[in-house]
Amino acid sequence: QGTRDHHPAHVVLRDRLLATAIACFKRHGAAPLDTPVLELRETLVGQYGEGAKLIYELQDQGGELLALRYDLTVPFARYLAMNKVTKMKRYQVAKVYRRDNPATTRGRYREFYQCDFDIAGQFDPMIPDAECLKVIHEILSDLQLGDFIIKVNHRLVLNGVFAVCGIPESKFITLCSTVDKLDKMAWEEVRSEMVAEKELCPEAADRIGDYVKLQGGLELIEQLLQDPKLSQNKQAKEGLGDMKLLFEYLTLFGITGKIRFDLSLARGLDYYTGVIYEAVLLQQERQPGEEPLGVGSVAGGGRYDGLVGMFDPKGRRVPCVGVSIGIERIFSILEQRVKASGEKIRATETQVLVATPHRHLLPARLKLISELWDTGIKAEMLYKKDPKLLKQLQYCEDTGIPLAAIIGEQELAGGVVKLRDVRTREEVRM
Amino acid sequence: QGTRDHHPAHVVLRDRLLATAIACFKRHGAAPLDTPVLELRETLVGQYGEGAKLIYELQDQGGELLALRYDLTVPFARYLAMNKVTKMKRYQVAKVYRRDNPATTRGRYREFYQCDFDIAGQFDPMIPDAECLKVIHEILSDLQLGDFIIKVNHRLVLNGVFAVCGIPESKFITLCSTVDKLDKMAWEEVRSEMVAEKELCPEAADRIGDYVKLQGGLELIEQLLQDPKLSQNKQAKEGLGDMKLLFEYLTLFGITGKIRFDLSLARGLDYYTGVIYEAVLLQQERQPGEEPLGVGSVAGGGRYDGLVGMFDPKGRRVPCVGVSIGIERIFSILEQRVKASGEKIRATETQVLVATPHRHLLPARLKLISELWDTGIKAEMLYKKDPKLLKQLQYCEDTGIPLAAIIGEQELAGGVVKLRDVRTREEVRM
Repeated sequence: QGTRDHHPAHVVLRDRLLATAIACFKRHGAAPLDTPVLELRETLVGQYGEGAKLIYELQDQGGELLALRYDLTVPFARYLAMNKVTKMKRYQVAKVYRRDNPATTRGRYREFYQCDFDIAGQFDPMIPDAECLKVIHEILSDLQLGDFIIKVNHRLVLNGVFAVCGIPESKFITLCSTVDKLDKMAWEEVRSEMVAEKELCPEAADRIGDYVKLQGGLELIEQLLQDPKLSQNKQAKEGLGDMKLLFEYLTLFGITGKIRFDLSLARGLDYYTGVIYEAVLLQQERQPGEEPLGVGSVAGGGRYDGLVGMFDPKGRRVPCVGVSIGIERIFSILEQRVKASGEKIRATETQVLVATPHRHLLPARLKLISELWDTGIKAEMLYKKDPKLLKQLQYCEDTGIPLAAIIGEQELAGGVVKLRDVRTREEVRM
Repeated sequence: QGTRDHHPAHVVLRDRLLATAIACFKRHGAAPLDTPVLELRETLVGQYGEGAKLIYELQDQGGELLALRYDLTVPFARYLAMNKVTKMKRYQVAKVYRRDNPATTRGRYREFYQCDFDIAGQFDPMIPDAECLKVIHEILSDLQLGDFIIKVNHRLVLNGVFAVCGIPESKFITLCSTVDKLDKMAWEEVRSEMVAEKELCPEAADRIGDYVKLQGGLELIEQLLQDPKLSQNKQAKEGLGDMKLLFEYLTLFGITGKIRFDLSLARGLDYYTGVIYEAVLLQQERQPGEEPLGVGSVAGGGRYDGLVGMFDPKGRRVPCVGVSIGIERIFSILEQRVKASGEKIRATETQVLVATPHRHLLPARLKLISELWDTGIKAEMLYKKDPKLLKQLQYCEDTGIPLAAIIGEQELAGGVVKLRDVRTREEVRM
């Protein structure tokens, strides 16, 4: 339940998508890491808040208590701490496991891919953070998914906002999840959740509302740096300083056109400590008859400076910042697009079918195909002693093989092969 | 315990190896399949004989009872039956799980890769079987692992041998595992196991010995077809007929030089029903001071015509034949070889480091690196505002980056870049 076999055409399309992401990660000098699917239960417990109940645990069959990994970030942090690595730019593409209520029609599975890029190390501020945003920008551009925007915020700015609105620090994290709903809910609804569930006084909620509804670019950062209340708050000032530097670097990268400082972005995970971001595809105008494309968050991430220290016995911190590309959601979009375009995804890459038009020519086929394989040509033949030529050509059409290398008695005697273009039916002897 | 993190240089070397295998599978028209790590426990139970106790089971957290896959063959058979697929050539490279006693020094892990190629479908005899042997031959040749031999036998020939030696059918399978030890043990030892543990009379054991010590090529097949006893046994005759046809096809493929009909090859798994094979590397002469290379079985497989039917409610059979490449063992050999050669495996593919020799040039670096990324060039820079040039060049040497693109104030003013070959220290302006 909640898992699926990925049939060949699916794997081919997914690999196209992954190849784009991996090419970008390599372009940015990231190294591949591969960690086990199994982690110690104690490594995962306590990292995911509410998510803890979704962890798959292994039966106690003697020995260590194990669980299936829940994401790739915690294993990466565990790896860094365990190997005392203090600097690393790595990518990892692998399956993760969550005992969620599967909603397979909406593309939510219990086994699904994550595709992560992270930069660990103590560096000058905002340079790796800016690179993470550049990585998202490159991948979404390369995939040609249509228009998108990357929302950016900073946990310290949010903390500052909460503080100057008179909220006690104990409510900061739980308020983040309420604020985060502003992209799906109207302010009125968010406000009543704040008052009814989070027990804020209506005035405090309204003060928060004045801030978190703000969106903009560099000019908004400048404006908030002048804000009489925020400019007095240490965390807000630090966060806004980071944001200003970040925008400077993003300007040099030439990508600010798709970046939006959005104070309502909060991200669910507790471990973020600095810049956070999320890329969303913008609703495209649909052609008549076309299926509506699932629009939403397709990448996200942020800075988490405290996680590695949790796995180090001496608590040594390794600051990290990273990106996770929402492969499964992007895949659903690409799949719908392929469907709409009528493109037929080939499951194989075979270039030529070795065929014979007469009986008793299996030896000739075996010899020729062996020569082709040995020269690196992707070739197939039917596993039949004496197949009909029509069946062989039909197989080419069914599986998209573009060429047929045909040897009849005449060709065999002349030491040639008839090469046929399956689509145009043109033939040449060679 | 028994698992490991694959650090970057490890992944890079492993991916080289896998790329060779996958290129071969694609050359033979195989399509990729990806099945879940999780299978229903009932799918796995009863498939692995003694191996059953090594299956990792998941905690019963409500819902279905699950386990981690033990190999890729059973999930493939389950996939074919579940989707009523009657013809498929597929490959799969993925991790499998066994609660074995880890012997990590000898490369035995609880989580390890398998790399499988299988052909399912009802076809004319021995054509797909011959292709599987060709696939092993190509991969081992492409990997340049040194000399190898592929031992081939047939379960029906073995059954025939046992039958004509007067062994009751109930002992056939258990005797296979004893016979299979002839590659590691002397005949005397194998014989005493047959007599003491398998309760054969010494004469029967000797009669078996006369057969299973035989090795050869086509001439041995012809000889056994004339054997007064075997030629009277239906199974032996059928198996030898298959072998003769197989050798005919292998001759056309030009690979009989590395094929050896070996009557002692039996293979452990119960589900084989026809041709079986195993590739072994031959002991290479060692250079003085060189580590001994782990020599042994590096690929194997065979025909299993009954497995898919076990997963079909109506028992419909889909004949299959396949190959499993022993990635982990081959990897250990390659790793030792790389170590011996002193080759340094780069963890990244970065082509150029963007560097500056003076202070206050971070903006120039960010602009240039962004241009390089956008043109598809793999580029890195240090995440420091004002790094020393020496540190930047040192980073190139440490990580194997061949080029440094240097922009100083002069270059910036002249609109040029100084491109430096890190190894030769040659510089050109461009």
